[in-house]
Amino acid sequence: MKLQSILSFFVPKDNVFLDLFAQSTANLVATASVFNEMINHTDVSLRSDYTKRLKDLEHAGDEITHRIFTELSSNFITPFDREDIHYLATSLDDIVDFIYGSATRLNLYQMGECSSAMKKLAEIIEKQAKEIDVAVVNMKSMSNVIRIREALVRINSLENNADDVFDEALANLFVLETDAVKIIKVKEILANMETATDKCEDVANVIETIIIKQS
Amino acid sequence: MKLQSILSFFVPKDNVFLDLFAQSTANLVATASVFNEMINHTDVSLRSDYTKRLKDLEHAGDEITHRIFTELSSNFITPFDREDIHYLATSLDDIVDFIYGSATRLNLYQMGECSSAMKKLAEIIEKQAKEIDVAVVNMKSMSNVIRIREALVRINSLENNADDVFDEALANLFVLETDAVKIIKVKEILANMETATDKCEDVANVIETIIIKQS
Amino acid sequence: MKLQSILSFFVPKDNVFLDLFAQSTANLVATASVFNEMINHTDVSLRSDYTKRLKDLEHAGDEITHRIFTELSSNFITPFDREDIHYLATSLDDIVDFIYGSATRLNLYQMGECSSAMKKLAEIIEKQAKEIDVAVVNMKSMSNVIRIREALVRINSLENNADDVFDEALANLFVLETDAVKIIKVKEILANMETATDKCEDVANVIETIIIKQS
Repeated sequence: MKLQSILSFFVPKDNVFLDLFAQSTANLVATASVFNEMINHTDVSLRSDYTKRLKDLEHAGDEITHRIFTELSSNFITPFDREDIHYLATSLDDIVDFIYGSATRLNLYQMGECSSAMKKLAEIIEKQAKEIDVAVVNMKSMSNVIRIREALVRINSLENNADDVFDEALANLFVLETDAVKIIKVKEILANMETATDKCEDVANVIETIIIKQS
Repeated sequence: MKLQSILSFFVPKDNVFLDLFAQSTANLVATASVFNEMINHTDVSLRSDYTKRLKDLEHAGDEITHRIFTELSSNFITPFDREDIHYLATSLDDIVDFIYGSATRLNLYQMGECSSAMKKLAEIIEKQAKEIDVAVVNMKSMSNVIRIREALVRINSLENNADDVFDEALANLFVLETDAVKIIKVKEILANMETATDKCEDVANVIETIIIKQS
Repeated sequence: MKLQSILSFFVPKDNVFLDLFAQSTANLVATASVFNEMINHTDVSLRSDYTKRLKDLEHAGDEITHRIFTELSSNFITPFDREDIHYLATSLDDIVDFIYGSATRLNLYQMGECSSAMKKLAEIIEKQAKEIDVAVVNMKSMSNVIRIREALVRINSLENNADDVFDEALANLFVLETDAVKIIKVKEILANMETATDKCEDVANVIETIIIKQS
């Protein structure tokens, strides 16, 4: 199928998926933004409130994912391959889950102010979320393939940054921190955040697959 | 396809899958029950025996899973979508693996008596396993869709309970326990059990997908 | 389809996949060999150099995986089922990722000389990698199904060995090591290596699925 014919494929029925994905990425951006705000807030007594807000966003994301699966099960014809729709929905859901997982642990473990590594990772996640939203919203029209590809490149580049931040933070943690309990806590939160950036890369990869198939 | 026609779909050849899944869930229930018994037993010297029994059950589960994959590879027509059969078989296998993983660690780490959180999680897992068995056995007939749906709702509700138990247990662990080595051990066992409850939810989700497609 | 007709299926277009998979397994063998050498080297100051070499191999593997996905997206007809090609490519990539993950942690955590358990696991991974290469290279011709099956049996058997080595190493770690920080580091590296052997088993399973479907 030529790129020029993608639009014709998005008859109303098919737009259901693109609309749901746009809802999912809008919810992802909201989640990543609230989390970034939480990470940077100096008043740690607000962590429990932030966690509640993120729990609501996580539930909202679950419902969107569930609706995508229901549409997928009840539609014989889909705009993209079924397994790509499934994988995209699952990966978007995973990002929100890992962000929420990082937030609950920050709260549960009664951590003090966040390290600069955590702040960098939260910023990277928010940037990736916004690029994912750009990519998904632009999937509505074939004329924007270049914009989608540019967003995907930036998502992958941000993931590489995240790897470096994570590796350096982990090395420093073991050198500078002597309290094993503190190491366990910090390491787990950093790992959750780093996995969130990996899941963003997974989303970029499946969008690329979809684009190749459409071209 | 209408619900009324599901039965007609289960010609002998197709029943192979439902029979194998019923074997898989029966094995899962047995695994979850032995594990729950192990967790509640006050005589920790029996842990090694329980682990051996669970290893046998885990191997039996592997063989059933393997037979499902073999049937799947050699059958061109299947009662449900191939990817759903694959995912259901894999998820059932995962639950048993995580239960067994929790048991081996309890044994390897020479843990003392189990905490109330572990007992609650083991009970939740056994309840989920029994609901999964109810759901799968009822897939043999279209008249039981309501029973299947009720079981799925309970599986999801139990998973939410497990999340709360896990979060509270983890928070308490870091407040009450000062021995980092003990924290590492307990945290890992709790995490394995909590993941087992997540995998039960995965099973519920794929069964729901299958039901929607059949309706 | 009879085994005898597999060859006829591998028209030039299809060979693209087998060639790419052979490149992927050759890269895997190189990765596993360099890692085994790193693990056994007594001069720990070379760890950073080894990690760089492994990073290059990991990137090379990423590119091969990416090419497989691109071919998969742009080819309507594939020699095996699309999902099997996807899963095989992903699992091969995962093995390399977990080997590389073990290496970076050895380096980052500034570990001393490796334990005999780590040396055994690195040796098992290298053996599995070589058996995977044998299996994949032999997929080019139908006459070698027996050789493929023998390789798969050995991969699974090596994974069982790895489980025993890992379990014993973990039990010993908690008995012999009192430094919680050291336990965290060693446990994570061992777990990464053990997961690499699990991923080798995943590769064996998907190759078996492909063989069954072709027979």
